[in-house]
Amino acid sequence: MSKPGATGPTGRPAPGQPALTGLAESGLAESGRPARRRVVALGGGHGLFASLSALRRVTRDLTAIVTVADDGGSSGRLRREYGVLPPGDLRMALAALCGDDSWGTTWSKVVQHRFSGEGELGGHAVGNLLIIALWQLLGDTVLGLDWVGRLLGAHGRVLPMASVPLELVAQVQGIDPEFPLRISTVRGQVACATTTGRVRSMSLVPADPPACCEAVQAVAEADWVVLGPGSWFTSVLPHLLVPQLASALIATQARRLVTLNLAPQPGETDGFSPHAHLEVLASHAPDLTFDIVLADRAAAGGTTAELHRAADLLGGRLVLADLAMADRPDRHDPRRLAGAFAQVFEGE
Amino acid sequence: MSKPGATGPTGRPAPGQPALTGLAESGLAESGRPARRRVVALGGGHGLFASLSALRRVTRDLTAIVTVADDGGSSGRLRREYGVLPPGDLRMALAALCGDDSWGTTWSKVVQHRFSGEGELGGHAVGNLLIIALWQLLGDTVLGLDWVGRLLGAHGRVLPMASVPLELVAQVQGIDPEFPLRISTVRGQVACATTTGRVRSMSLVPADPPACCEAVQAVAEADWVVLGPGSWFTSVLPHLLVPQLASALIATQARRLVTLNLAPQPGETDGFSPHAHLEVLASHAPDLTFDIVLADRAAAGGTTAELHRAADLLGGRLVLADLAMADRPDRHDPRRLAGAFAQVFEGE
Repeated sequence: MSKPGATGPTGRPAPGQPALTGLAESGLAESGRPARRRVVALGGGHGLFASLSALRRVTRDLTAIVTVADDGGSSGRLRREYGVLPPGDLRMALAALCGDDSWGTTWSKVVQHRFSGEGELGGHAVGNLLIIALWQLLGDTVLGLDWVGRLLGAHGRVLPMASVPLELVAQVQGIDPEFPLRISTVRGQVACATTTGRVRSMSLVPADPPACCEAVQAVAEADWVVLGPGSWFTSVLPHLLVPQLASALIATQARRLVTLNLAPQPGETDGFSPHAHLEVLASHAPDLTFDIVLADRAAAGGTTAELHRAADLLGGRLVLADLAMADRPDRHDPRRLAGAFAQVFEGE
Repeated sequence: MSKPGATGPTGRPAPGQPALTGLAESGLAESGRPARRRVVALGGGHGLFASLSALRRVTRDLTAIVTVADDGGSSGRLRREYGVLPPGDLRMALAALCGDDSWGTTWSKVVQHRFSGEGELGGHAVGNLLIIALWQLLGDTVLGLDWVGRLLGAHGRVLPMASVPLELVAQVQGIDPEFPLRISTVRGQVACATTTGRVRSMSLVPADPPACCEAVQAVAEADWVVLGPGSWFTSVLPHLLVPQLASALIATQARRLVTLNLAPQPGETDGFSPHAHLEVLASHAPDLTFDIVLADRAAAGGTTAELHRAADLLGGRLVLADLAMADRPDRHDPRRLAGAFAQVFEGE
């Protein structure tokens, strides 16, 4: 009968080494180890999960900045009950950075585990409850997230984009098919993400929320900032609407990269071409330039010329690569995405 | 900006050294370090918490065996929703064994944290949810508890007394004051613990539950088994009603110690004298003997002669010591209790 026990972490961990399968696809630096460049990834949900799953392979200094506007599911229930930041996107980003050993992967599964059933716990993710408990105990948002990061042996840090919960408000055209030009106001992330109309613009309530200081600082000190992929209007764009964060993104000496989605998202970007995504960015943050627009070759399809032009207007260049999983063309393959990041980072 | 990170435990931990304040009160072995004797503590709730808080100071090989009959509060809700063992007493025992460093104490606070409010989460302890999630993920009760132990850097192991949730059934006399001799059947731990009548006997449903194998094994291999203190009918006695566990307690080569409560418990042992507690044990497990009956000097009061007689009938001897906190005569002082344990263990 062996007894288990924990070695409490007492300081900065020895950086974990992700299991990598080949130099070409892995994004390893020439030394054979992930490089020490400071990378900040902005987004939310599954898009940010994909981005982080790739970036953890190419850097040992990774910070995620996460949207806090979710009002659906477990996050929405917790936000309404306790007035806290919606924890779900933060939890998912932390899980994406979990350690590779059995400790990290087990706690990551626990944190991602969702209770079943229609009862009071049904639908709640364990990590959401853990994050809220730490916030209530410690009274400090960033410290609470850091503790979950320590639990997971996380390869990086996860921060919220703002210090208060946010509401998304969209101006949407043509919700009522009888009045295709009429603009309606749609409130809340779930409603915005599932609207049947065409989103024309987004704004936040409150309009000038306090940014998370550590997030602003991370952008200021970064070598690279990476925006997207993800739900364009509800996970990617909101970062540009937090004034202090947008200013930091414009002012930073870091190079900027935007990763495009593999496919339009039913609802919020139905029928949007790849370059239309870039135009949306430009219209919401006219002073923000990008050095690199990273797009999947197949997803770009016949719109490469327009994409080159849009990248040019943003101040940068287009990089095309095969980024999707072989069997799931709607999902980024972390190894391929890591390979593209490594090539771009090494090349600049 | 420093980044936190975890060192995942990869094996058996270096045994933690509890902070101790003085040799006389601390229960340290002569070497100045807790001894390697194998101690098993049985009970539940606050009584077991007190016992473990003391025992962790006098041994480095400690196993808690915990009642699983609770049907109230957070545990009761989870048990009804998911059909699992009630986790509350297991959680509390784990918290009693948490590591002394900031890692152990912080996660212990998280595990013990209770959500506030009247909403769906109100009243749930975080550790209960964590334990249930691990059980659902791993499909193994003991393994799930071991993982929480690792999280806490626990100084010992926590096991359930049975592998299935149990219902307590009491025969209670005089619930209706008009019929003081009438015996009624009362079902459920909460109802048994709060009955206004006098509990005459207890039984379990199911009557022959499977014991936890690891718990039976721990009793077989122990140097000392320690029963109580705690709610006598609902936390202490139930262990003797699990047939395999009772057989193991009778068969073990370990010496046996029972710690008496400091005061009768309103409801289940209202008006019970200290020696009446021992008679209840004897009547429910006639073949079980005890080497030591440990009682608080003040609580024994004028009943010392009867207590000596009752200890003698159980096959052992009475040890009187000052065990209560100076300012809370109804609470065991972990240091004083540890001192008494050490004296007994060293002396035998």
